[in-house]
Amino acid sequence: MGVFYGVGLGPGDPELLSIKGLAVLKRAGRIYAPGNHGGQSLAGAIVRHHLPDAPLEYLEMPMTREREALETAWREGAGRILASLSRTDVAFVTLGDPLLYGSYLYLYREIRSADPAVVIRTIPGITGFSAVAARCNVYLTEGSDRLLLLTGTTDPLQFQWYCREFETLVIYKPGADGAGLCELFFASCPAGEGVLVSRCGMAGEAVTPLGPGRTLPPLDYFSIIILHTKGKP
Amino acid sequence: MGVFYGVGLGPGDPELLSIKGLAVLKRAGRIYAPGNHGGQSLAGAIVRHHLPDAPLEYLEMPMTREREALETAWREGAGRILASLSRTDVAFVTLGDPLLYGSYLYLYREIRSADPAVVIRTIPGITGFSAVAARCNVYLTEGSDRLLLLTGTTDPLQFQWYCREFETLVIYKPGADGAGLCELFFASCPAGEGVLVSRCGMAGEAVTPLGPGRTLPPLDYFSIIILHTKGKP
Repeated sequence: MGVFYGVGLGPGDPELLSIKGLAVLKRAGRIYAPGNHGGQSLAGAIVRHHLPDAPLEYLEMPMTREREALETAWREGAGRILASLSRTDVAFVTLGDPLLYGSYLYLYREIRSADPAVVIRTIPGITGFSAVAARCNVYLTEGSDRLLLLTGTTDPLQFQWYCREFETLVIYKPGADGAGLCELFFASCPAGEGVLVSRCGMAGEAVTPLGPGRTLPPLDYFSIIILHTKGKP
Repeated sequence: MGVFYGVGLGPGDPELLSIKGLAVLKRAGRIYAPGNHGGQSLAGAIVRHHLPDAPLEYLEMPMTREREALETAWREGAGRILASLSRTDVAFVTLGDPLLYGSYLYLYREIRSADPAVVIRTIPGITGFSAVAARCNVYLTEGSDRLLLLTGTTDPLQFQWYCREFETLVIYKPGADGAGLCELFFASCPAGEGVLVSRCGMAGEAVTPLGPGRTLPPLDYFSIIILHTKGKP
């Protein structure tokens, strides 16, 4: 029985993969990446960047919030991984860190419950928000700052309260609600500062400084917003 | 004039350095690591692991919260870096991610204000909390979970409220107050789960599952606590 590795590829720039992550991918007899409509995903492209001849296959992951469709996809994916594990070590790759808003968690649970004896090792990755902060040279936390990580679906009333309470707010997947949250932020923190980065370290990267009254550009799926409630980093 | 690089070395395991971080260290004409009493730091040891003959020097960083002593140390460090930058590219290394509770921020500000023309590039790193989650195979966030990152000095009354509000709490530098916060956590979230990891990926690593009434071991400086308010990951 092989070992199942969850490998974090980092935030998008292929060179931000860890040395350990690359070593695991080199050794794995089978690598699975999330894919769509049989097509290549960004995660798959990062694997190919380092290992053009890697034994790479895609697990179909529907872009939906429909629980049943997702669960079917995870179960089928876990089945394919378990079949491969009978022959070799297997790696499943994700962008960023596998355990932070990652699809790896669902596969992990399916595999763990299907066969509790499988050895599972997680290789952490650089998160998208670390990459965004580095790209813009803005801090995430200093001293005893608190950082709240949330998604664009956060309730606006709660969000306003977070703006008064914490030093740093990071919004993942801002989506359609991100612009509204940014408006609320500058209404609550007139001296606050913020930045939106789309596709950090990838083709089509865009950096947008935020401020009161500024309109947000259309938000790519790979968008992250960092807000500092106390102002200039 | 050289380029100043802030390089995140990752959480302690030398192999969790990124490919890009290592490439920058190989190219730099001078590498500075935080040190104490002229001695080697863990950050320096990670550099030496990859590059035994690297042009590595230590910047004395007093282990104190005394603002004046720290500011003097940063100013002197920035002065040495600026002198080196007149001849070559310079890297300053930190554990974890440079912009998350990192000492790099202070040097960055000193250098930026002393000479706004210096080109500064930050290379992000894998954070300690990603490494702890991976080590224990516990999730950080799923779905639209919120994650609050804080330090052991957090006010206990506020902390109790965070326990009711958020799915995941991560405590950096738990120090003397960490045990008290864990007690409060299990009083607020009887179904909650938690883990304490000291020296993750380093010599002397220790993993301690947390629970109501369990006593915490003495907390090493490199300790991180992950708490899940909604229970089993």
